[in-house]
Amino acid sequence: MPTISQKGRNMPESPIRKLAPYADLAKKKGHKVYHLNIGQPDIKTPEVAIEAVKNIDLSIIEYSPSAGYESYRKKLAHFYQRQNVNVNTEDIIVTTGGSEALLFALATITDPGDEIIIPEPFYANYHAFASSTSATVVPLVSTIETAFALPSIDEVEKLITPKTKAILICNPGNPTGYLYSETEIKQLAELIKKHDLYLIADEVYREFLYDGDDVHFSVMNLEDVQQNVIMVDSVSKRYSMCGARIGCLITKNKDVLATVMKFAQARLSPPTIEQIACEAAIDTPQSYFDEVIGEYKERRNTLISELNKIEGVIVTKPKGAFYCIAQLPIEDSDDFAQWLLESYNLNGETVMIAPAKGFYSTPGMGLNQVRIAYVLNKKDLITAVNILKEALLVYNNR
Amino acid sequence: MPTISQKGRNMPESPIRKLAPYADLAKKKGHKVYHLNIGQPDIKTPEVAIEAVKNIDLSIIEYSPSAGYESYRKKLAHFYQRQNVNVNTEDIIVTTGGSEALLFALATITDPGDEIIIPEPFYANYHAFASSTSATVVPLVSTIETAFALPSIDEVEKLITPKTKAILICNPGNPTGYLYSETEIKQLAELIKKHDLYLIADEVYREFLYDGDDVHFSVMNLEDVQQNVIMVDSVSKRYSMCGARIGCLITKNKDVLATVMKFAQARLSPPTIEQIACEAAIDTPQSYFDEVIGEYKERRNTLISELNKIEGVIVTKPKGAFYCIAQLPIEDSDDFAQWLLESYNLNGETVMIAPAKGFYSTPGMGLNQVRIAYVLNKKDLITAVNILKEALLVYNNR
Repeated sequence: MPTISQKGRNMPESPIRKLAPYADLAKKKGHKVYHLNIGQPDIKTPEVAIEAVKNIDLSIIEYSPSAGYESYRKKLAHFYQRQNVNVNTEDIIVTTGGSEALLFALATITDPGDEIIIPEPFYANYHAFASSTSATVVPLVSTIETAFALPSIDEVEKLITPKTKAILICNPGNPTGYLYSETEIKQLAELIKKHDLYLIADEVYREFLYDGDDVHFSVMNLEDVQQNVIMVDSVSKRYSMCGARIGCLITKNKDVLATVMKFAQARLSPPTIEQIACEAAIDTPQSYFDEVIGEYKERRNTLISELNKIEGVIVTKPKGAFYCIAQLPIEDSDDFAQWLLESYNLNGETVMIAPAKGFYSTPGMGLNQVRIAYVLNKKDLITAVNILKEALLVYNNR
Repeated sequence: MPTISQKGRNMPESPIRKLAPYADLAKKKGHKVYHLNIGQPDIKTPEVAIEAVKNIDLSIIEYSPSAGYESYRKKLAHFYQRQNVNVNTEDIIVTTGGSEALLFALATITDPGDEIIIPEPFYANYHAFASSTSATVVPLVSTIETAFALPSIDEVEKLITPKTKAILICNPGNPTGYLYSETEIKQLAELIKKHDLYLIADEVYREFLYDGDDVHFSVMNLEDVQQNVIMVDSVSKRYSMCGARIGCLITKNKDVLATVMKFAQARLSPPTIEQIACEAAIDTPQSYFDEVIGEYKERRNTLISELNKIEGVIVTKPKGAFYCIAQLPIEDSDDFAQWLLESYNLNGETVMIAPAKGFYSTPGMGLNQVRIAYVLNKKDLITAVNILKEALLVYNNR
């Protein structure tokens, strides 16, 4: 039989996927499964976006331009400008999800064997995108003790080699919920300037901040290093439009834009109808966001206070996004997550959690941690954490 | 400034893109430009698909499964089965356009430096997809004299090296319109079996055949070599839904499917709304296709008979798809194509053509050839070819 590429064999499997059959099994047994494992919000998509789809006036679903519709890129630039983020229409290439923006960014700046430094734990698919383009992930370990803050800049600098091409951050972070401060971002900026690297910032959770004083500092507002900066964004979480698969890559670097454009042309265009929906979504009223952020803030507060009631659980309050990493009084969260689905139920209910191992690249890290997404309503969150609490007692006394 | 990757620099630019500013200029001068250069049909999308979009019943535009909606994959399998093509639901992974299916296929089977043999001239983006994944394209020269038929199988075999991983064909072909016969496909099958290679077939134009006796022979119907075969398909041309960005990768090889699935999971999912439109499109009545194929057949016949009236033009009648390669009495079609837009008009009208150089990988090939897409109506095609005829006289007597 012909062979599979090394690249393909090296691609990590989704850390959650191998649990899916056990979740199916639990459901077949009639158990209710609370999904704390996924990033699919239950929040409604803004009506303006759904209405735009329903009122679509097309007789041919044609290609859009490879960079996306200009009308959409213009409105998007205004959207950023209203938030005082330094973005113009010509800095934007619309992509098929934030995923494609990351793929294009990595393909544009790395050749096989080049290195990307990523604070760890990180979104598992960064590893997959790096594998796709044959780049190597160099993890920068951050710890639960510091709420996953950026390690000292000396620690970051130690990881830089002649093969290093970029530092990639997610801000605020999936899976940590950590919000990098303006000071941290500016420290990174100095470092990338000194070593002539790129700074790629995945800012897809930029709106999801829950503490009054906190402000999101975009890499697009870094002065001096504009040629080194690439921002990745997406509508998935902002408008609860994960299925639209519309994101964008933003940079002031014309060489990067021209190269990304070649990759964009090769795949022809991002989806047409979904772009029309996204263009309409930009008119979403502020009241929608106030409500959504208020809801998530309550969920976060509920989740963290409930988790803190469990003996042996360590968790810090995430400042943004809608995830947290919780350390549990167990040794192997893979085994625990499977056991929850396969062998446990509390009154016919159980929970599905994401073992944190998949968010680490350093072997042996995160084995007693899980990622919990707070995309369920408050009542369900309380029930789910209670199940977790009771389950830990049973699991540890087997 | 930080550097661009070698991979990014090697990415070919779209062969048409560099002409775009000249087309804009011509339009600014008030000239009408007949676009013979593009593959965007003017055919209407089936009403069932548009209606499905308008009647969408979603309050959240959620992720779909990474492999695509199961309901869509089931209907798609039935669609193939009705055409006696050997495809089951579990053989299908829905992709973001045929483009992504090709990218996934190449990433799954090649590592940097591995070789893919492709009959030349070929769809320019095959080169881009190979560059993306750091694979090398090895061109198999086919010629206008044989209407771009497959060269003798010995010629193909001579190109195989220890680095060869696959042969990639487009059937019927863009840009040649050539339809591979069952005999040719079976010769390729023997060769891939002998050398344990993959055969990737891009069959996105499978319905577009214009001569009564011609039958499309799918690689999925090859016996014996099912583990070596990967088929790529798309809704773009079938339903004139280029902007939907929905395609699929089909194979019976479980290792390939499992690896493609890892790439598919990393990018999360194909677009949700467009998939719903595609599922509905499968119910498009046969009358739609009869009308569309009838229309294209007339266009093809018109185009070829008009081109044959021009002295010095060599063209063969394409059997499928909606392109042909025409050899013109000129030396440099890049220059001619630019001149048509920049310096020529006939009563305020001119044409845009795709220089064929971009469809060849062998240096020096195709310099006096152009690709012409017959996606315009008959009247416009006649006018456009007449402009071409008059322009050639002027161009060659400058």
